Amino acid sequence: MSKIAIMSSGGDCAGMNPAIKKFVDYSISLNLEPYLIYEGLEGLIDDKIQKATYSDVSGIVHRGGTIIQTSRSKRFFEKEYRQIAYNNLKQKGIDKIVVLGGDGSFRAFNVFCAEFGDIKFCGVPSTIDNDIFGTDYCLGVDTALNIISNATDSLRDTASSSKRAFVVEIMGRDCGYLALITSLISGAEVCIIPEKPIDLEAKKQKLLSEMQNGRKYIIAIVSEGAKQTTQIVNWLKNDIGIETRVTILGHIQRGGTPSVFDRLMAFEFTKYAINHLLNVQEQASVVVYKESKFDFVSVEYVNSQKYKIKQDLLDLVE
Amino acid sequence: MSKIAIMSSGGDCAGMNPAIKKFVDYSISLNLEPYLIYEGLEGLIDDKIQKATYSDVSGIVHRGGTIIQTSRSKRFFEKEYRQIAYNNLKQKGIDKIVVLGGDGSFRAFNVFCAEFGDIKFCGVPSTIDNDIFGTDYCLGVDTALNIISNATDSLRDTASSSKRAFVVEIMGRDCGYLALITSLISGAEVCIIPEKPIDLEAKKQKLLSEMQNGRKYIIAIVSEGAKQTTQIVNWLKNDIGIETRVTILGHIQRGGTPSVFDRLMAFEFTKYAINHLLNVQEQASVVVYKESKFDFVSVEYVNSQKYKIKQDLLDLVE
Amino acid sequence: MSKIAIMSSGGDCAGMNPAIKKFVDYSISLNLEPYLIYEGLEGLIDDKIQKATYSDVSGIVHRGGTIIQTSRSKRFFEKEYRQIAYNNLKQKGIDKIVVLGGDGSFRAFNVFCAEFGDIKFCGVPSTIDNDIFGTDYCLGVDTALNIISNATDSLRDTASSSKRAFVVEIMGRDCGYLALITSLISGAEVCIIPEKPIDLEAKKQKLLSEMQNGRKYIIAIVSEGAKQTTQIVNWLKNDIGIETRVTILGHIQRGGTPSVFDRLMAFEFTKYAINHLLNVQEQASVVVYKESKFDFVSVEYVNSQKYKIKQDLLDLVE
Amino acid sequence: MSKIAIMSSGGDCAGMNPAIKKFVDYSISLNLEPYLIYEGLEGLIDDKIQKATYSDVSGIVHRGGTIIQTSRSKRFFEKEYRQIAYNNLKQKGIDKIVVLGGDGSFRAFNVFCAEFGDIKFCGVPSTIDNDIFGTDYCLGVDTALNIISNATDSLRDTASSSKRAFVVEIMGRDCGYLALITSLISGAEVCIIPEKPIDLEAKKQKLLSEMQNGRKYIIAIVSEGAKQTTQIVNWLKNDIGIETRVTILGHIQRGGTPSVFDRLMAFEFTKYAINHLLNVQEQASVVVYKESKFDFVSVEYVNSQKYKIKQDLLDLVE
Repeated sequence: MSKIAIMSSGGDCAGMNPAIKKFVDYSISLNLEPYLIYEGLEGLIDDKIQKATYSDVSGIVHRGGTIIQTSRSKRFFEKEYRQIAYNNLKQKGIDKIVVLGGDGSFRAFNVFCAEFGDIKFCGVPSTIDNDIFGTDYCLGVDTALNIISNATDSLRDTASSSKRAFVVEIMGRDCGYLALITSLISGAEVCIIPEKPIDLEAKKQKLLSEMQNGRKYIIAIVSEGAKQTTQIVNWLKNDIGIETRVTILGHIQRGGTPSVFDRLMAFEFTKYAINHLLNVQEQASVVVYKESKFDFVSVEYVNSQKYKIKQDLLDLVE
Repeated sequence: MSKIAIMSSGGDCAGMNPAIKKFVDYSISLNLEPYLIYEGLEGLIDDKIQKATYSDVSGIVHRGGTIIQTSRSKRFFEKEYRQIAYNNLKQKGIDKIVVLGGDGSFRAFNVFCAEFGDIKFCGVPSTIDNDIFGTDYCLGVDTALNIISNATDSLRDTASSSKRAFVVEIMGRDCGYLALITSLISGAEVCIIPEKPIDLEAKKQKLLSEMQNGRKYIIAIVSEGAKQTTQIVNWLKNDIGIETRVTILGHIQRGGTPSVFDRLMAFEFTKYAINHLLNVQEQASVVVYKESKFDFVSVEYVNSQKYKIKQDLLDLVE
Repeated sequence: MSKIAIMSSGGDCAGMNPAIKKFVDYSISLNLEPYLIYEGLEGLIDDKIQKATYSDVSGIVHRGGTIIQTSRSKRFFEKEYRQIAYNNLKQKGIDKIVVLGGDGSFRAFNVFCAEFGDIKFCGVPSTIDNDIFGTDYCLGVDTALNIISNATDSLRDTASSSKRAFVVEIMGRDCGYLALITSLISGAEVCIIPEKPIDLEAKKQKLLSEMQNGRKYIIAIVSEGAKQTTQIVNWLKNDIGIETRVTILGHIQRGGTPSVFDRLMAFEFTKYAINHLLNVQEQASVVVYKESKFDFVSVEYVNSQKYKIKQDLLDLVE
Repeated sequence: MSKIAIMSSGGDCAGMNPAIKKFVDYSISLNLEPYLIYEGLEGLIDDKIQKATYSDVSGIVHRGGTIIQTSRSKRFFEKEYRQIAYNNLKQKGIDKIVVLGGDGSFRAFNVFCAEFGDIKFCGVPSTIDNDIFGTDYCLGVDTALNIISNATDSLRDTASSSKRAFVVEIMGRDCGYLALITSLISGAEVCIIPEKPIDLEAKKQKLLSEMQNGRKYIIAIVSEGAKQTTQIVNWLKNDIGIETRVTILGHIQRGGTPSVFDRLMAFEFTKYAINHLLNVQEQASVVVYKESKFDFVSVEYVNSQKYKIKQDLLDLVE
């Protein structure tokens, strides 16, 4: 019986658990033997690899994070440890791996699979940053957006009760996608993302004029990647002259019960990944979602460019 | 027909809208004429006082914040502006006010009512900090705790997925109540509150020993009032040696749909306040909730001591 | 200045308020004069049509339902009342209408616009049933699914605590889409939809065998449109022999804060509808979302076929 | 080392998991050996009793239901099976049990402990019905109320969008407590509970008059225990003449993440129960919460009267 494994790698996100559930159920339905690699690349090196049963994945669909944990690994950069990882897999007869992760993880696996020749992997784009080139959607984004949206809705309740500015820092290491969408759906007055520098002087004139006409509060959404949170707080306090409070959502954006959309995407991504590993010769591939269709691209393609937010979305930011 | 008004003052909190709704409904049922004072003390000075109808308060019970807005006012410290405020009330024939606020607001009204002699007020303790002496409960606390609890539950999903420490800063200017309760119900490993200094060296030994025995992540709850957020982040990074991330919940703790408990407390506080204003001679009083009973105390009493967290709760923090 | 109106028609859904907000903001940005028609077709006949300002739509993005209300109208079937409706619009100079509704509403407007010749409308597919032919998505579906998902997650907590069957009736007059997706994302053991009759005898054998192997509880999702709720309850009690409880979610599936996806879709649908009304001659059209693209189809096309759930989704039901 | 066990019995509720977590942690801190009895009385008979470790109860505080499952047992009514249950406990050296359940479960244990003489138990009132005499609060009530409140808030969104009546059936076998509180906090127009028969003719006149003055929708909260759901639906349709829809929440009221209040109460109830078992001679007792204080009463006392809703709450229903 063919053996297949799944692992998380890099940052976790909502949707990983539904993917793991589907991985086990679908593998068994195809008469494959499913394995779970615990603790990401570190666990792969340390042989934390276990055969999976239905009961390992029962009742996990609605849980955030990843029950098999994840990690980043410095050791995996060294040939010596990759050899150990390879031996661990071979010893169990595993030659196919589904990797829930981001572009960095896919790069690492690309090297690994090329190196040893008889291991195949298929990556599932999983990061709330939504910053992987080649796919319109990464697992976890919809859940993260809804968690952020709940937070900004709450903030608006209290904001509309007094004269204040609120700065909310949103995750996204290099990519302002989450911050941009949050600005749109919350109707934020200020949106700061790395992709589109803001003219603070023009914005200041606009806000001051609105405040003279009755505007009482300001919500500013700042992408972590813009590294301007402190600057914007000071600008609001000193240049706009309004009492200002800060919210840094941090990792609560990563947790939470997976949304319906993320569950469905997790199921589909995983099913496509397994089918691809079974039917196609490629050693390394990534399943992507483009214009409502699932497709496969190479790791080289995914890493060939930086993800760019679509222009029509960027145009919506004043 | 006797005229009665309600206003918010100081920080807003969940539960104010149900209180305003009850105020209008109950006043009308008693044949009183209800008024809404908009924008707190600033609106009182600027005569933003309007007669209320059923439709003003329809559909607000489940909304966070306060539809009549709130403010802090420097002008109200000056006799000149208090005189204007008084004139605004007298002109409309209003001589009874329900004040949703904290001890600072009650002090201001105590001065105001003593000064003019023919205005009475009853305060309803309203602050998520739960730091008003003389009452076991302040409006908004239960909702804030449940919002925080949702956030820390989400965090635990992601925390249990990788090896990290998470620092969550919780509101409470001088009082660690919210942070303490959050620590208890989320099972946080570290709890930093102003009321109980922590022995960081002992805690360090404990955490390091637990980590050697398999502990993977740490959640640290830090009360804003302890002013130690940065210190704890650095301690975790440098002394404990674990990657550390920060969440500052900020004002999302103040918003959100009022919980059932806050709606019920809002209804009761308001009913008791109105009855007291109608039946008792006192010019200034505060309705309190002590050991499951509603009662009334003087503003002097409320301000006579600092609120203290009960010792048995403090004992639960290691 | 050109005048344009928006109305809800038929059943309400989450996403209507963000659409109304966008309608007003976007119209003003294009120098159009926006109007709100209150209470659907009934309000159109009774002239409940008001010019809209920013403040009419402030703070509504996160509210479920539709602030301009909706209705079904028997009177609109009569020429006499359509004439009155037409006169109301002409008197105000309104010749373009965005209609948030379903295929029935679009049919009614198609007749209306053909009849009078100088009124144009563009429909936005809005129904949680997701049963409009020609579009992959109808406004409100994502929010409804997430509300249902919360409910079934809660149910699973309690289901896994004791030996019982739970039947959940899900909305969908003729279409099992909501029930089907709910079955998938909740891992329900039984899924009853009108599109795919179930072999109860085979299912009985399967469940009995699973129960002998340790299965403790059963969740059955039944589409309202299948009209089999009572039958399935009795089958579980008598044929399967398990204590059975029923949940009928009813209209709570229609309410709730619009999800991020529904807000974004509401914004896009509305923007496309307005642009189409301004730039295209057609009197009657419907904006649709097909394979990640927005497009326009005729009312005749929308009504030419019954919506069919995609075969690959149906195949997922055993 | 003294051995102590915990079990759930009867219906499950939110708060049981935090109680189980606290039971294990607190027992270990007191140097007791904690055991979990799985599947309630059935599991007690079938010897599903396991020694508990920290890891058995890690990450369960925020989960609804009970991880040790619960049951009702006919066998436990027979001496023969009680003898087996007793033997199971003695064999492991367990002589103290915390029982999370309702009055029926407490009665069963009262018989059991009297029969064998050297087993003690302490009951923790756990039922969302809040119908146990002798305590102001039963575990699970606050969570259930907040789940119901979310549902009725959603319903009001959609209700206020069209002219309709909505009937919501709320749990409570004999007791209308949940329905009564739901009526109050949702401002329902009709409240049907077994404790207070409604004058339908008077209510009809009132509603019809309100509808003539502009009332558009009606929300009717009906307690399951009143057995009048169908009657009220027909009354609204036929006598009031309004289109009517039904929601039966069912067991989703029992699930859901435990609220902060239920977590705190679970911790306290459990701590008091363990202390009592260790320090007091009584064979059978129930920990209760009366006027903000924890106390202990006998099983006979709990069963001496039917729980009555306080008169001042009943008076709030028109």
